[in-house]
Amino acid sequence: MNNVILIGIAGGSGSGKTSIANKLSEDLKESSLFVISEDAYYKNQDSIPMEQRLKTNYDHPDSIEIDRVISDLKSLKMGKSIQLPVYDYVNHTRSSESLTIEPTQVVIIEGVLLFVDPRVRDLLDIKIFVDTDDDIRFIRRLKRDIAERGRTADNVIEQYLDTVKPMYHQFVEPTKRYANVIIPEGVGNATGVEMIQSRIERILQDNKK
Amino acid sequence: MNNVILIGIAGGSGSGKTSIANKLSEDLKESSLFVISEDAYYKNQDSIPMEQRLKTNYDHPDSIEIDRVISDLKSLKMGKSIQLPVYDYVNHTRSSESLTIEPTQVVIIEGVLLFVDPRVRDLLDIKIFVDTDDDIRFIRRLKRDIAERGRTADNVIEQYLDTVKPMYHQFVEPTKRYANVIIPEGVGNATGVEMIQSRIERILQDNKK
Repeated sequence: MNNVILIGIAGGSGSGKTSIANKLSEDLKESSLFVISEDAYYKNQDSIPMEQRLKTNYDHPDSIEIDRVISDLKSLKMGKSIQLPVYDYVNHTRSSESLTIEPTQVVIIEGVLLFVDPRVRDLLDIKIFVDTDDDIRFIRRLKRDIAERGRTADNVIEQYLDTVKPMYHQFVEPTKRYANVIIPEGVGNATGVEMIQSRIERILQDNKK
Repeated sequence: MNNVILIGIAGGSGSGKTSIANKLSEDLKESSLFVISEDAYYKNQDSIPMEQRLKTNYDHPDSIEIDRVISDLKSLKMGKSIQLPVYDYVNHTRSSESLTIEPTQVVIIEGVLLFVDPRVRDLLDIKIFVDTDDDIRFIRRLKRDIAERGRTADNVIEQYLDTVKPMYHQFVEPTKRYANVIIPEGVGNATGVEMIQSRIERILQDNKK
């Protein structure tokens, strides 16, 4: 397949990246768009003792096997399938399974740290940063982690202040300037999302010619 | 004419608003898009002595006849023509002339203070904020005012620090959050501009149906 379009969506935890990616995915034919989470590329930690694994800072760029992200994006762009790693959140390491991903006309990759590496940025045809107020992002994270991950409020607050917030200011927020468009408010901003949809539709139309 | 689409472009002095508006205008058929500058609505100052006119703070929302902006946008949206005021920058007041503007399918209005009034924001179908680094905006303004307006660097710096910068932080920057999309870097960001173009084209296509 030629002309695979790579769209990158970055933004802090709770900004609404995933919701926007899913919204775009729903509105297009299933076959023409696939969404990858950069979290799938968290490093294999098999050789590290569990005690140390639990201290992994998943908000730091070092947590991601960036060379594999780059080679996979290059493969997809050339119309080749990839083996997408699957992360095992229980054992804090990469699982032995992987998913075969066939290239689609549009591939969206989303991740907090996505725009940190310039080689990744260069591969992306469209770079979108979802910009949501820090307090709203924290509130979403708090609700999600309590409801879906059985965490306590204190525990969520501690992790947020220890790593999520400082890593956001150090690594994520500075990459906003590399975006082609910044979407405030996440998926609640229908007009902003429609703009991305129109651009994707237009590229797909042009590719047909 | 039905379905007139109003697009608002805000952003600081030197951000690249006008360049983006012109780029969008060039790329579409002339008949289907018109660009209005909100500066055209600076208040009539005929009854104010010249000495006082020279002190007008054009970076403050009070400098604009906002009720006329609103009624004109409403007229255009309803497919009615408007009489666009013409500002006389030599005499620092509204000139006696005006321009008859027939509604086009897309009307772009651009201005530093465009998103300040909620009634204006409510009338705009798409709100775009052009976000360019403060130093780059100052440098553009410096070059422009020296080249086109015969000003000295000291004079440009004084006005920038006295009114442009404080008014930007007080009134303009806080309106960024109302945008549907924020475009970093102005017209140099081709991918961002293409996204707006695609959205406009899509709306025009839908209107034809």
